[in-house]
Amino acid sequence: MQDRSLPISDDEIAQFRAETAGCEERVFFNNAGASLQPKRVVERVIEHLRLEQQLGGYEAADVVAPEREKVYASVARLIKANADEIAITESATRAWDMAFYGMKFDPGDRIVTAQNEYSSNYIAFLQMARKTGAEIVCAPANDTGEVDLPELENILQRGDVKLVALTHIATNNGMVQPAAEVGKLTRRYGIPFLLDACQSVGQMDLDVNVLGCDILSATGRKFLRGPRGTGLLYVRRQMLDKLEPLFLDNHAADWSAIETYTMRPDARRFEAFESSAAIALGLGVAADYATAVGLARIEARVQKLAARMRKKLEEIEGIKVIDTGTIRSGIVLFIHDQVPATHLVSQLAEKKIVVRMSPRFGTRLDAKISALDDLVRASVHYYNTEEEIEQFCDTLAHLVNAL
Amino acid sequence: MQDRSLPISDDEIAQFRAETAGCEERVFFNNAGASLQPKRVVERVIEHLRLEQQLGGYEAADVVAPEREKVYASVARLIKANADEIAITESATRAWDMAFYGMKFDPGDRIVTAQNEYSSNYIAFLQMARKTGAEIVCAPANDTGEVDLPELENILQRGDVKLVALTHIATNNGMVQPAAEVGKLTRRYGIPFLLDACQSVGQMDLDVNVLGCDILSATGRKFLRGPRGTGLLYVRRQMLDKLEPLFLDNHAADWSAIETYTMRPDARRFEAFESSAAIALGLGVAADYATAVGLARIEARVQKLAARMRKKLEEIEGIKVIDTGTIRSGIVLFIHDQVPATHLVSQLAEKKIVVRMSPRFGTRLDAKISALDDLVRASVHYYNTEEEIEQFCDTLAHLVNAL
Repeated sequence: MQDRSLPISDDEIAQFRAETAGCEERVFFNNAGASLQPKRVVERVIEHLRLEQQLGGYEAADVVAPEREKVYASVARLIKANADEIAITESATRAWDMAFYGMKFDPGDRIVTAQNEYSSNYIAFLQMARKTGAEIVCAPANDTGEVDLPELENILQRGDVKLVALTHIATNNGMVQPAAEVGKLTRRYGIPFLLDACQSVGQMDLDVNVLGCDILSATGRKFLRGPRGTGLLYVRRQMLDKLEPLFLDNHAADWSAIETYTMRPDARRFEAFESSAAIALGLGVAADYATAVGLARIEARVQKLAARMRKKLEEIEGIKVIDTGTIRSGIVLFIHDQVPATHLVSQLAEKKIVVRMSPRFGTRLDAKISALDDLVRASVHYYNTEEEIEQFCDTLAHLVNAL
Repeated sequence: MQDRSLPISDDEIAQFRAETAGCEERVFFNNAGASLQPKRVVERVIEHLRLEQQLGGYEAADVVAPEREKVYASVARLIKANADEIAITESATRAWDMAFYGMKFDPGDRIVTAQNEYSSNYIAFLQMARKTGAEIVCAPANDTGEVDLPELENILQRGDVKLVALTHIATNNGMVQPAAEVGKLTRRYGIPFLLDACQSVGQMDLDVNVLGCDILSATGRKFLRGPRGTGLLYVRRQMLDKLEPLFLDNHAADWSAIETYTMRPDARRFEAFESSAAIALGLGVAADYATAVGLARIEARVQKLAARMRKKLEEIEGIKVIDTGTIRSGIVLFIHDQVPATHLVSQLAEKKIVVRMSPRFGTRLDAKISALDDLVRASVHYYNTEEEIEQFCDTLAHLVNAL
């Protein structure tokens, strides 16, 4: 057993890589899209699909019911929540949706967000504003791109703020928002705080009590290394009855008499009865895997690797790293001053190096980023190595020099 | 190649059973819960999970993008719809929800339904009624349990009907509602018609133009023999702009300028970006499999097997078949006058015969059914055989005689 107060060792990295089929053949830097899953995650999903094939879908679900119940505790552990505060959904988007659209807005109510807000969330704000007359306020950013805390406090002080909604780490900027500082403000002013932690769960050591958020949404497929088609929603107990689940079915509520229904007492009221048990079990395995590695250790290693990658990238002529922020995540964004992002991505793919194109309009609020062309995103995880970063940067340098 | 104007032959049945792993060891009569999937469905899902493991989730999705696109046409073919009228969702419930909750109701608007309406749908009506002041009207049933068509027409004539919502086949009654007759009435009165076809898609030869429904929802896991965690939504083109998708993300809509968004032109506006590609591909394979067998042939065989099962069950002393309806599906419900349903289900399971308990409160509207205790549900599919029905009824007769 490793001493989990120490950084992740080389031996452990070798082990994690042996447990990750996809890193044998490729340098994989699309962990912010969908990370490579540990073998045991994929095997757990497949094992259950085989059981369903043999017994039938309901009968197989009966067999794994206790294990499936434990998935809630496994997920809760990642963010220091309680199991009854967790719903498991089919995506981070639907998790976020079930909470956001479950709030009631009146004309003039203000939704406060920040410059790095995720496009899907902003589309939802626009739809809500059009339907209800609520207003969207984008809090200004400071010089390094984070939400400006004194400015945010000014906005909160002016009243009518119904919700503060923040994207912890954007898809197209490595910057980590100072979520815990925002949480202190929202608590001070008694305003609900919805944190989109899609890119932070699994790469950072999160604690909903430190963050001060009332609602948190995340996905399974990114830094958590879980299956596609999974998401998680945390709703603080005190917040639960302040949201009305938009959809109710016979899982979320009991049809208690002909003209009445009773909602479940826990956060699973945001779920539906039907879902794939197989991928839910895979999500549980992924959560336990991350916990076993240790989230603080993951966070430290990811930040170290990403910092190294940024430094090496800046040494390549014509490459410019775009990320802002005082604290930066494993997501690294860059451009070349001549070569389009799509070209770099496809050329690297031929060399078995996987990075992703990040469309410029991932956000429209951050004028500095949306003024650029499409970006290249290289996102590292703890199982990546310094050697892979060297190989990537060397290959990239050769590519751009050859053009 | 079989002549598809002829009934399914014994040779074909042997082939279908060889292609269904689960029917080797068990007599499987829970097709109305989640049917046994053909091997190629499960293998397609697993193959994609392996590809994701090797390439990454996004990169694997890129590889199968053309095949995934074809899933819409495969699903549309099952109900004679167009591919652009189909959304693929994570469950029938969420498909139904996205349509129903996308409608706008004002105080006094009437939602008309029937006595066999599914519990989850009715809970949704109650929630909507509470929120908007809409009223729920349950159209009376005729002597055999179907919605009484002259009575329904009287209700539609009285005005203020905003929606007719019907469950085609209930989970706890084999009766098939006369959906096409209802569709004629809703067209005559220009009222939107939402058909919950969760239990009919895959066991009946459906045509949305004959049914006259404007919206249809169904699941993959039941008679369609697809993976768990899949659902489908059909929205007639003319209906599309009359519904507002409750949730919008960057798949359903484009963030076209800072303060505007533009919805997709097709039914996929009811989807979210993230979903499991693996199970979507499995759904496509299941749809193609059903089409290859032939839905008219499936329907004929299922009705024949179910009729035989009902007849044999009625011959067992103390057993009472509960299904009503002039046309009855592959879903067979029965009780014993002494032995509780749970006991029968578990005793049969020990003999490797899989049936399911159907809780009495699957509906509350049908007074005849909800007055009973829990029911036993045995649901047959085309790959089942007359020999299995004999074995089931013989075993059941022995069980109840021994008590």
